[in-house]
Amino acid sequence: MAAASENDLMSKIVSLCKRRGFVFQSSEIYGGLRSAYDYGPMGAELKRNLMAEWWRAMVHSREDIVGIDASIIMHPEVWRASGHLAGFSDPLVDCKVCGERFRADKAPRLAAGEPAPITLADKGRAKAAQDRVQSVLGVELRRDGATLHGAVGAACGYLCPNCGSPFLSDERQFNLMFRTSLGPVDPIGDIVSVVKQSLAEGTSDGELRSRVEAAVKESSVYLRPETAQAMFVNFLNVQQSLSMKIPFGIAQMGKSFRNEVTVEHFIFRSCEFEQMELEYFVEPGAGPRTLEYWKEERMRWWQSIGLRGDNLRLRAHEADELAHYSDGCWDVEYKFPWGWDELEGIASRTDYDLKAHSAGSGKKLHYFDPEATDPETGKKGWRYLPHVVEPASGATRGVLAVLCDAYDEEPADAEGKGARTVLRLHPRLAPIKAAILPLVKKDGMPEVGRRIVERFMAAGVNAKYDEQHSIGRRYARHDEIGTPYCLTVDTETLSDDTVTIRHRDDRRQERIRVDEAVDVVLAALRG
Amino acid sequence: MAAASENDLMSKIVSLCKRRGFVFQSSEIYGGLRSAYDYGPMGAELKRNLMAEWWRAMVHSREDIVGIDASIIMHPEVWRASGHLAGFSDPLVDCKVCGERFRADKAPRLAAGEPAPITLADKGRAKAAQDRVQSVLGVELRRDGATLHGAVGAACGYLCPNCGSPFLSDERQFNLMFRTSLGPVDPIGDIVSVVKQSLAEGTSDGELRSRVEAAVKESSVYLRPETAQAMFVNFLNVQQSLSMKIPFGIAQMGKSFRNEVTVEHFIFRSCEFEQMELEYFVEPGAGPRTLEYWKEERMRWWQSIGLRGDNLRLRAHEADELAHYSDGCWDVEYKFPWGWDELEGIASRTDYDLKAHSAGSGKKLHYFDPEATDPETGKKGWRYLPHVVEPASGATRGVLAVLCDAYDEEPADAEGKGARTVLRLHPRLAPIKAAILPLVKKDGMPEVGRRIVERFMAAGVNAKYDEQHSIGRRYARHDEIGTPYCLTVDTETLSDDTVTIRHRDDRRQERIRVDEAVDVVLAALRG
Repeated sequence: MAAASENDLMSKIVSLCKRRGFVFQSSEIYGGLRSAYDYGPMGAELKRNLMAEWWRAMVHSREDIVGIDASIIMHPEVWRASGHLAGFSDPLVDCKVCGERFRADKAPRLAAGEPAPITLADKGRAKAAQDRVQSVLGVELRRDGATLHGAVGAACGYLCPNCGSPFLSDERQFNLMFRTSLGPVDPIGDIVSVVKQSLAEGTSDGELRSRVEAAVKESSVYLRPETAQAMFVNFLNVQQSLSMKIPFGIAQMGKSFRNEVTVEHFIFRSCEFEQMELEYFVEPGAGPRTLEYWKEERMRWWQSIGLRGDNLRLRAHEADELAHYSDGCWDVEYKFPWGWDELEGIASRTDYDLKAHSAGSGKKLHYFDPEATDPETGKKGWRYLPHVVEPASGATRGVLAVLCDAYDEEPADAEGKGARTVLRLHPRLAPIKAAILPLVKKDGMPEVGRRIVERFMAAGVNAKYDEQHSIGRRYARHDEIGTPYCLTVDTETLSDDTVTIRHRDDRRQERIRVDEAVDVVLAALRG
Repeated sequence: MAAASENDLMSKIVSLCKRRGFVFQSSEIYGGLRSAYDYGPMGAELKRNLMAEWWRAMVHSREDIVGIDASIIMHPEVWRASGHLAGFSDPLVDCKVCGERFRADKAPRLAAGEPAPITLADKGRAKAAQDRVQSVLGVELRRDGATLHGAVGAACGYLCPNCGSPFLSDERQFNLMFRTSLGPVDPIGDIVSVVKQSLAEGTSDGELRSRVEAAVKESSVYLRPETAQAMFVNFLNVQQSLSMKIPFGIAQMGKSFRNEVTVEHFIFRSCEFEQMELEYFVEPGAGPRTLEYWKEERMRWWQSIGLRGDNLRLRAHEADELAHYSDGCWDVEYKFPWGWDELEGIASRTDYDLKAHSAGSGKKLHYFDPEATDPETGKKGWRYLPHVVEPASGATRGVLAVLCDAYDEEPADAEGKGARTVLRLHPRLAPIKAAILPLVKKDGMPEVGRRIVERFMAAGVNAKYDEQHSIGRRYARHDEIGTPYCLTVDTETLSDDTVTIRHRDDRRQERIRVDEAVDVVLAALRG
């Protein structure tokens, strides 16, 4: 893909996703919904396969990890204790010149009093902005083409990232958690009553706002912004019901929701997304070495599902990125078309989480190891609050990384033939493992083809019978959805029980016996 | 289970679910959340297995059905067009005597003027209610123990289902969909402003309410109350990207949310639940015979995953249960401990859904069949709005049915030994297919055991190594979680490569070669 520019590649992938049934814009016939996507037949299989691989590697293949599947709506106190209710909000600011809404903490800096040229999209907009600034803010600016001169940096110390304006609203906190109400009574009626009563009593704006918040709070619940908290809240139930011994982990996959200010890069950052998270509980002091273990393990996993090593890297968090309680955090980054970006975060979180939920719930979340020596008393038997290492990855962005990595175009040959688009998916991720294609829709070939499909089904392999269009178009279609093998049933098949097997990656074709076919595909799935 | 009463059985299942890590109350350390449940390690596997079986039967094993995985938050116009925003609400009423909130349409009937005795929990409460009715409503009632006499049926024609009172609030519509806001700005600020402004203008209560609704509506979105609408909204995208030919189906599994007034029977009816739905598109007129096909097919499927035939039945909807557009609907019912109740609904929905979304979105959702003859023109080539048959089942209540069906207790023998609880799960649903148990934790048995586990893993079978506690306790534990096979590694294994295989259902033990073990289990999974 050296030839394609970054934007090219993304738009080609978006187009392939729609054309071949991987990803559609959600509610498209209604004009779509901001940053929401629906996975079509091929995308649903690809995402399922990716997540099944994670579950297999993390839960089924290990003695020390078990999985859970918790509800999306949890008790609101969970989010208070975890710090999400207070901290899961960004300071947002609106630009009074261009209307951009942005996060104050990510905005470009400019010291107060320094010159702040404002650049609009074109001369016309610049002129309109010049007039607006003068009439609304009473500031006279000088225009030079699309740029306005004469403004200076404000006391807040930052600028609008879009136009460079220092004319900004106050910072406001917005909660990134989706709030809703449990119980069928909509709280709007309550809000109206509270406002009415407060106004009648001449309450101040601040007090009014607190009263409204209090009225809403009774029924307020939140959609989880991460799956992780369920593992902490269920720590004791899981540990006790399965007699788990530390070190052990609890894994979960599923939907999370964040009311993101910025949604971008197709399915990379959206308000509704899917996570694959592990909380691995260790004894105090074991966090840093466990972090080392998981760094290597997770990098290996992403490569095991087919991502190329040179498109993956580990990046240590800088001191200023690190949460105050964390004693180490690394990101697994993938080289997306727009640059390196996060695929997974692996954090050593000390005992922060269990301590927070212990304090929040009043329940002791300690673990007792009868074999270990208590470092304080020097005696056998150690009761402690476990420390946690968390490898938390995005399934949705994992799907995008896999698509980017697998997408390939092969140019035409000297005769102008053979150009194709191919998705070089790992066979375990491919939506369809084998396509069974009768050369023609007659002479008994469909029946033979369907019998071959049944053999695959019996072996638990997702194979599909496909008889629509010419054999060339069928090959092209299966290249685009990443089907690793096409088996063609022809007249020879009817007489000698052999089929042509076509390999996706090099288009190589060979003749194999029908009764070998399942094994060839199974071998690729294991490999 | 003849001996256990219905309540007994449910409480035993709830207790087993918690003890063995199937289902925990959500956020239990915070006192739990109304009707929310978390699936522990065993429950998560059981639910995954149940849903994987559905997907295998409905999507992977068929040429005519493909799957999708759509977002939970869809465009709000989807719910307006589908009728959910208007109709997905129940008329609720509050009892002024006991405070019960109930659905008007399900309340016991009583004609106006007929005697309506009111019965409270005890004398004390009856006395307090008598005083309250007199002081608040100005009605004098006569008390006899815990019952109040003298009230008569009201004009509404129904009574409080809890105490029998005819003193009721007006009916109010409550939306059963969870409403939330998309975009990081919380709409509460907007609501407060609207109320303030309206009060300043002296607006009427009704007008005030509409203005507030309008302010909220801008950012309002809803959690889907069913997965089905995504199949209608994506009908064209799926049909075109995969060149599907009618008849064909689109299947989806996933979370849905309903702000239920009544939550009951453990995981049977809860606000957050999981569905497995199919929308099967057919040509006009083919609905009724397609309904017949799916009735049989779905009954067969529930039995194929192990539910006993005599605990399943098909029940036709009565005329008054049938939606106005439907030309037939059947429920698959399971004999739960509290009686027959719905597991799946199979409805012939005519062209109601695609017509509604065609009207709502302004997009043509027709299908063109070049081979069929148009019944109106008599010519080849027929363009029509497809009809739909919908088999819609509950995955969460499917899990409960499976647990009820599999739960068994065996009494002790004459010597008072051998009593046990066993979960007779179909091997394909069992969380763990085989437990590998070293007789003792030494002499190389653990190493041999772990190598056997690896053989199972390589064959894609979820097996678990388990060395904790005595062999008897391990058998008991695996009986309770439904593990179909226990393989015990003993001294003989070390010399002749054989293990004891114990069959869960009849506790039969036999000696097999280690290299046969995987095949024995695979055969049971296929069977």
